[in-house]
Amino acid sequence: MATKPKLHYPNGRGRMESVRWVLAAAGVEFDEEFLETKEQLQKLQDGNHLLFQQVPMVEIDGMKLVQTRSILHYIAEKHHLFGKDLKERTLIDMYVEGTLDLLELIIMHPFLKPDDQQKEVVNMAQKAIIRYFPVFEKVLREHGQRFLVGNQLSLADVILLQTILALEEKIPNILSAFPHLQEFTVKISNIPTIKKFLEPGSKKKPPPDDIYVRTVYNIFMP
Amino acid sequence: MATKPKLHYPNGRGRMESVRWVLAAAGVEFDEEFLETKEQLQKLQDGNHLLFQQVPMVEIDGMKLVQTRSILHYIAEKHHLFGKDLKERTLIDMYVEGTLDLLELIIMHPFLKPDDQQKEVVNMAQKAIIRYFPVFEKVLREHGQRFLVGNQLSLADVILLQTILALEEKIPNILSAFPHLQEFTVKISNIPTIKKFLEPGSKKKPPPDDIYVRTVYNIFMP
Repeated sequence: MATKPKLHYPNGRGRMESVRWVLAAAGVEFDEEFLETKEQLQKLQDGNHLLFQQVPMVEIDGMKLVQTRSILHYIAEKHHLFGKDLKERTLIDMYVEGTLDLLELIIMHPFLKPDDQQKEVVNMAQKAIIRYFPVFEKVLREHGQRFLVGNQLSLADVILLQTILALEEKIPNILSAFPHLQEFTVKISNIPTIKKFLEPGSKKKPPPDDIYVRTVYNIFMP
Repeated sequence: MATKPKLHYPNGRGRMESVRWVLAAAGVEFDEEFLETKEQLQKLQDGNHLLFQQVPMVEIDGMKLVQTRSILHYIAEKHHLFGKDLKERTLIDMYVEGTLDLLELIIMHPFLKPDDQQKEVVNMAQKAIIRYFPVFEKVLREHGQRFLVGNQLSLADVILLQTILALEEKIPNILSAFPHLQEFTVKISNIPTIKKFLEPGSKKKPPPDDIYVRTVYNIFMP
């Protein structure tokens, strides 16, 4: 009789997209309640549904979870995407934290001034190519598995694939110097639950457009 | 034969201070290697000691941990500061994430332009008083224990105390409307390991001064 998790967020990627990814990867169906107006946010706040007055918020297992990382950790823990022991867990945690630092740049990008957006694509590409991708390329090369940690899918794989695909939308050849990451992208994309999420009609959200940006400003700006 | 953890960071609070707090709370002695120059950072980077080329880095149990949250999670897990089950763990995680959002404002404050620093103190005070402290005041009131989660010390208590004390340095009466948080502050400060950390001569770092700010710029600016 478990009810489906319900996600509260605008109808776009933002900080919720990672949650959609990890639920999808775990094979968990979910519902979404899209925030469209400031009044809807206010109503959630007034009803004490948002611990720190912010979304993302996910109703799951009788709880109202907030804070992106806490939501991801809970789902990962529950669905065995967090390693088999503390050492694996810590590796996954570090890989996720690094990847989220990179993903944060992508999440903030549509809200930059038009003049700054192009410069920021260069910055993102550099960060990815110099700081983050070499680490994961080396991990995959030395580890010899198709997963980053151990021999099964983890939160680290899911968030890295999400980040790679979002970057490729802006910079199509971003993986050209990283053969193991290319292979990783293909293999993880073909895991049945993830393959389904990547197909049209899934709850994966499209790249942010002007309507999404305007909606976010309308809801969250004072 | 366990060797002490070794912390790599400049000689100041920044993103490492939370790690010092949680190690101290857990009663774990540690060594510190203070970064003072760009060359020292470069040496750590060139030797592949920093997974994502960044500090904080902590050598512990044969690993070189990076990313503040991952370091905190590892220490908390190892020293039973992360709750007794997944539900407690998730509450602790959410409370820590919220508190770290507030603490981040305090960490960045000394690096703002002088003109912006005073305005930011007002912003911090508002965030603390409107968004974060009411949550923890209510948790403590309803929970009726001296700890935020369950009946023992957790990472959430440690990071909240760190944040309260750092805010009080700037805004001495910040807790005036929060009697349960006042009591919490006194009680958690009197836990023997924490009491010792709060006494002169401990590895707790003083508030950031001009020398610290200059050192950070020297090390990290391109």
